[in-house]
Amino acid sequence: MDLFDTIDSRRSVKHYDANASLPETDFQRIMEAAIKAPTSFNIQHWRFVRVRDGALRQQIRAAAWNQAQVTDASELLVIVGDARAWARQPERYWRHADAATRDALVPMLQDFYRDRDWLQRDEAIRSGAMAAQNIMLSAKALGYDSNPMIGFDIDEVGRLLKLPEDHVIVMMLAIGTATSPAWPRSGQLALDELVVADHF
Amino acid sequence: MDLFDTIDSRRSVKHYDANASLPETDFQRIMEAAIKAPTSFNIQHWRFVRVRDGALRQQIRAAAWNQAQVTDASELLVIVGDARAWARQPERYWRHADAATRDALVPMLQDFYRDRDWLQRDEAIRSGAMAAQNIMLSAKALGYDSNPMIGFDIDEVGRLLKLPEDHVIVMMLAIGTATSPAWPRSGQLALDELVVADHF
Repeated sequence: MDLFDTIDSRRSVKHYDANASLPETDFQRIMEAAIKAPTSFNIQHWRFVRVRDGALRQQIRAAAWNQAQVTDASELLVIVGDARAWARQPERYWRHADAATRDALVPMLQDFYRDRDWLQRDEAIRSGAMAAQNIMLSAKALGYDSNPMIGFDIDEVGRLLKLPEDHVIVMMLAIGTATSPAWPRSGQLALDELVVADHF
Repeated sequence: MDLFDTIDSRRSVKHYDANASLPETDFQRIMEAAIKAPTSFNIQHWRFVRVRDGALRQQIRAAAWNQAQVTDASELLVIVGDARAWARQPERYWRHADAATRDALVPMLQDFYRDRDWLQRDEAIRSGAMAAQNIMLSAKALGYDSNPMIGFDIDEVGRLLKLPEDHVIVMMLAIGTATSPAWPRSGQLALDELVVADHF
């Protein structure tokens, strides 16, 4: 599917066929595309919790204002970011690089993130969000729809997932076969309101 | 260009032809694609600072470890997010919706973000990062390359852009015509290390 057509037709869809399934080959293709998004210093902060247990889906739905897509969609991913990924054996993110590059970059990235909690968190969110966009577009190109969600009890979902202390929730993503289309676009701001020339 | 081919071939490219240009029609097409990414409650936190002033580019380059792509790329975008966008006349984000939907959603989004500074910041980063992914893919599909950057003096670039207090820098993005290819992938983690079944 053409890139621009995919971007145009990807919309947030709320209603899914609970009886539809998403073949494993499609899931793998979507996830392989997800992790081709860039990350700062190749740190790959993203972790993808794939929720298939029905009881857990129900608990998450209860923590998500009872939104039906949480249980009805073929796949429910909770995208999380490891805010400490920069500190976990960062050599492995550069293991295929030449030694000189690796020896320069690894201390550089450690110096960049150390003691900057806000930047560690930003990075986890940023990486996960870029992967999410690849996931939504890939799902669309394979004939599925998706719904990115942050409107839920974030702390409660973290507890349900036994989320480690140093990980953050980026978003929840329902993926499946739509039973009704997205709402029409509700009020897009014009580009000339969004593009700033040189500085504010 | 096919979506999966675009995702595969988008890489972070560091070296650009300083004499190449990017026609305005291509820029507009890229930006129209950018703002088709989703945002929570359609808040559209993203703002795109398009830096074309040569002297300002030089100042930003000095604040970015002197990386040449800052001045050599045809376009330099600093993607920022308005962390307070949720509070700025949110009715307009739902102006084309029916009144009942708008009247339900606007107070809901205000309750969700009010007094949660961390979530307001997360959201600005998240929205900007999803738009960034659309920009990088769209640029690739039109024959350009890009380089997402966060390795720079973030505070100093904010000062140079006269960034409002309640806006956050999401990333800098160089877009242009490559003069040398990206580095080979340096150490990707395997999917089975990244996908977590049901919970940690």
